[in-house]
Amino acid sequence: MAEHDEIDNSTLSSTRAGRAVSLLPSYLTDARAVTKYCRSTAPDGALQLSVAENQMLEDLLVPALTEFTRSREAFPADAIYYQPTHGREPLRRAVTQYLEDLLDLDDGEDNSNNNLDPEGIVVGAGCNAVLENLCVSLAEPGQGVMIPLPYYAAFEFDLGSRAGLEVVPVPTMGYSGISSDDSVSPPCEAYYLTRAALDAAKNKSMNEHGVEPRILLISHPQNPLGICYPPHVIKETIDWCRENKIHLISDEIYAGSIYRKDSADFSSALKIASSPSSSLSSSEKGLGLGPYVHLVYALSKDFALSGLRVGVMYSENQEIRLPVQKLNDLCSVSSQTQILVEDLLMAKSSSSSSLSWTNEFLSENQRRIRQRCDTWQSCLNELNIPHLDGTAGLFCWMDFSEFLPDEGTPDERERKLYLELLNDYGLLFTPGQSMKSELPGFFRCVFTAASDHEFDLGMERLKAYVKKKKGIE
Amino acid sequence: MAEHDEIDNSTLSSTRAGRAVSLLPSYLTDARAVTKYCRSTAPDGALQLSVAENQMLEDLLVPALTEFTRSREAFPADAIYYQPTHGREPLRRAVTQYLEDLLDLDDGEDNSNNNLDPEGIVVGAGCNAVLENLCVSLAEPGQGVMIPLPYYAAFEFDLGSRAGLEVVPVPTMGYSGISSDDSVSPPCEAYYLTRAALDAAKNKSMNEHGVEPRILLISHPQNPLGICYPPHVIKETIDWCRENKIHLISDEIYAGSIYRKDSADFSSALKIASSPSSSLSSSEKGLGLGPYVHLVYALSKDFALSGLRVGVMYSENQEIRLPVQKLNDLCSVSSQTQILVEDLLMAKSSSSSSLSWTNEFLSENQRRIRQRCDTWQSCLNELNIPHLDGTAGLFCWMDFSEFLPDEGTPDERERKLYLELLNDYGLLFTPGQSMKSELPGFFRCVFTAASDHEFDLGMERLKAYVKKKKGIE
Repeated sequence: MAEHDEIDNSTLSSTRAGRAVSLLPSYLTDARAVTKYCRSTAPDGALQLSVAENQMLEDLLVPALTEFTRSREAFPADAIYYQPTHGREPLRRAVTQYLEDLLDLDDGEDNSNNNLDPEGIVVGAGCNAVLENLCVSLAEPGQGVMIPLPYYAAFEFDLGSRAGLEVVPVPTMGYSGISSDDSVSPPCEAYYLTRAALDAAKNKSMNEHGVEPRILLISHPQNPLGICYPPHVIKETIDWCRENKIHLISDEIYAGSIYRKDSADFSSALKIASSPSSSLSSSEKGLGLGPYVHLVYALSKDFALSGLRVGVMYSENQEIRLPVQKLNDLCSVSSQTQILVEDLLMAKSSSSSSLSWTNEFLSENQRRIRQRCDTWQSCLNELNIPHLDGTAGLFCWMDFSEFLPDEGTPDERERKLYLELLNDYGLLFTPGQSMKSELPGFFRCVFTAASDHEFDLGMERLKAYVKKKKGIE
Repeated sequence: MAEHDEIDNSTLSSTRAGRAVSLLPSYLTDARAVTKYCRSTAPDGALQLSVAENQMLEDLLVPALTEFTRSREAFPADAIYYQPTHGREPLRRAVTQYLEDLLDLDDGEDNSNNNLDPEGIVVGAGCNAVLENLCVSLAEPGQGVMIPLPYYAAFEFDLGSRAGLEVVPVPTMGYSGISSDDSVSPPCEAYYLTRAALDAAKNKSMNEHGVEPRILLISHPQNPLGICYPPHVIKETIDWCRENKIHLISDEIYAGSIYRKDSADFSSALKIASSPSSSLSSSEKGLGLGPYVHLVYALSKDFALSGLRVGVMYSENQEIRLPVQKLNDLCSVSSQTQILVEDLLMAKSSSSSSLSWTNEFLSENQRRIRQRCDTWQSCLNELNIPHLDGTAGLFCWMDFSEFLPDEGTPDERERKLYLELLNDYGLLFTPGQSMKSELPGFFRCVFTAASDHEFDLGMERLKAYVKKKKGIE
């Protein structure tokens, strides 16, 4: 360091910079220190089954993206310049059509209302980016965002680091009317939101922590559980939010990855929250959601395009319309990629002119996810490992609590188990602790994050682990 | 609105959402209300000469971008997935090479230090995005960012809306040793930063407003003045910052648009702040800037690619390295556009194999800007309108104070003049007021924001205005 610096550490960085780093999921530090699996150079390395990516789609995506990026004769001259801060108008129209189809929002009537309003759409650099701006526009620093347990580990960074919001966990166990029995792994219903759970979490936050919740953020389909909340749960949740004047943000980023549609019984929060078109005046645009219901979505999961950083938010709250549009100037998507996404969303299937490319792609993707899930769950069943039966998403929520060591706090016991799986068996799952699981010993397996060969190897390793622990061999 | 909403306005949005909107430059509201010029449909409409865009480059950019976007055989499979949050490694290497060349940072010695460190580079969604994260990592909410007057109108939004920072204006007039004489328009030197001006602004901020400045942000080349600070001013500024432990951020977004290199006497703050390689240990990477000097840059101005939203920051402060890398996850650039920019920065000229495409492009661009500037300044000279002699950027700083009406506060008088130019003569310049000009009646003309025809028409209109006001006809 050059001699001019008499360094005063207090002036080198802000405390919020340090706080941001402290909000990063800490299990990743352990994960980064481990050699990753490579068939040729590190055959004993750890298999990455903890990042929510879908690596089964390159054969479909690479040719399609190559074609879409070449479909226009030349780079559009108008794309050189500043764009509307919330996204190009043709892109926002394409997004509304896509979402109406995906979320089944079209009421069949050919009128201008009871459709999404393209002016309520904001396209920004990732789901985290649009979510942050939505929350900034709805809540002050220090206020709370309620999130049901267990939840996506990065929400704390995304909402806390710059926006200064506090995550208020919403435990559900014990509020659902499901009798708690330590010998039985909790069923889906134990994770459902209820008014009692919401009231308890809100009151605890205000009374014990002095944090006022302004937002409830739900992940629907649920990450990491791999299930959808049934319509009556969503309905009760929306009612509770409206009564309490708390904003509901429904993160439906996995809505196109529902791979067991019948058993999933998925209904978008937008569909449930919308008013019948008869109750809207003819001048009103949108679904009649009112000011307290909002959506976020992205291409990162259903299309496996996390590298494109394309997130979408939708709201009919007029008070935040201008702020969210303008704040998005700080996280806009490249015009080049906006055009690519517009072309992707509007493309026709190559095999059937009546089908869209997105429809064809998503159903093939759902078939592949279902196949992986079936295989993984069969393996778990064979090993008698309790788990939720997945219907959506890229993952399986598994109960490894029988393998927890006896000594230590719940956190210490789970961490030991996590490190044993990682270091001794090369299995990198997302530990439930990092997602604030109410019970220790739960793990999320992202069964789409691996190649076929890696996936098979993962099952072999898991079998070896369980057999060893149970003394079978 | 559906009947379920008993609306309580206090719960609909946050106060910071409203504050963000209030920070938007207000003159744009007037500008938006006016019909814009269109040769066929609105020949009397207003000419947009207030947005810092360069519209003279489509003939070069469209074919080049078309070629670059097709140069790879297929969409790279690895670009589908999450990228390093601060940017793809090959892109960051391409950026370091480009900046070393542009900012003349290569000391000629072929050693690994005294070059930019690619790990200190963060590529994010626009200059505003990387600037915000840099400032968040250096200062707490409520602390100050000093900016010399006049300054780019959007800094208040960019730094205030989410980061919660206060802009601390730094007046320079009267601190430069230039005698103030109301009958003479201030020369360049009157706008230079001095220790006296910096001390005064800092003390006033702390004593009168209780705001502690943590950052000094300079625009170099200066926007809206169209000039570069000479090296001795930058040197004094860096020394003052280091002594006061205040972070200097040098915004060099116009460094490739210096179109009169001899008279500009431009030297990057990075070049002036770097240590001789002899004072660095062999293990140290970078220029030896120490922790208090930082750079921001973007493709929006020099390459007229504001639509791509590609900003860059560079710092050697180790304390903020991880935070700025991770915060950038909230404003990352699409992998597709990262690859486009990598290919653009690495491309060879088509006419000369020893020249890079960027070098060839920038010199042609500088030639065009110079030509426009010459024509515009000749017109001003002919009309006896005082102005700074531009050397860099896309604009001319003009003194229209002789046309100010007599009645009202300085702000009211300038606003009247602004509206007269806009409404009666179809001339939309950026009013100095919006850039906190110390004296009323100054305007920025962005002479590159128009087509040749519009530019000619702008001069005609200005001549008509001045002749009318001076009663020549």
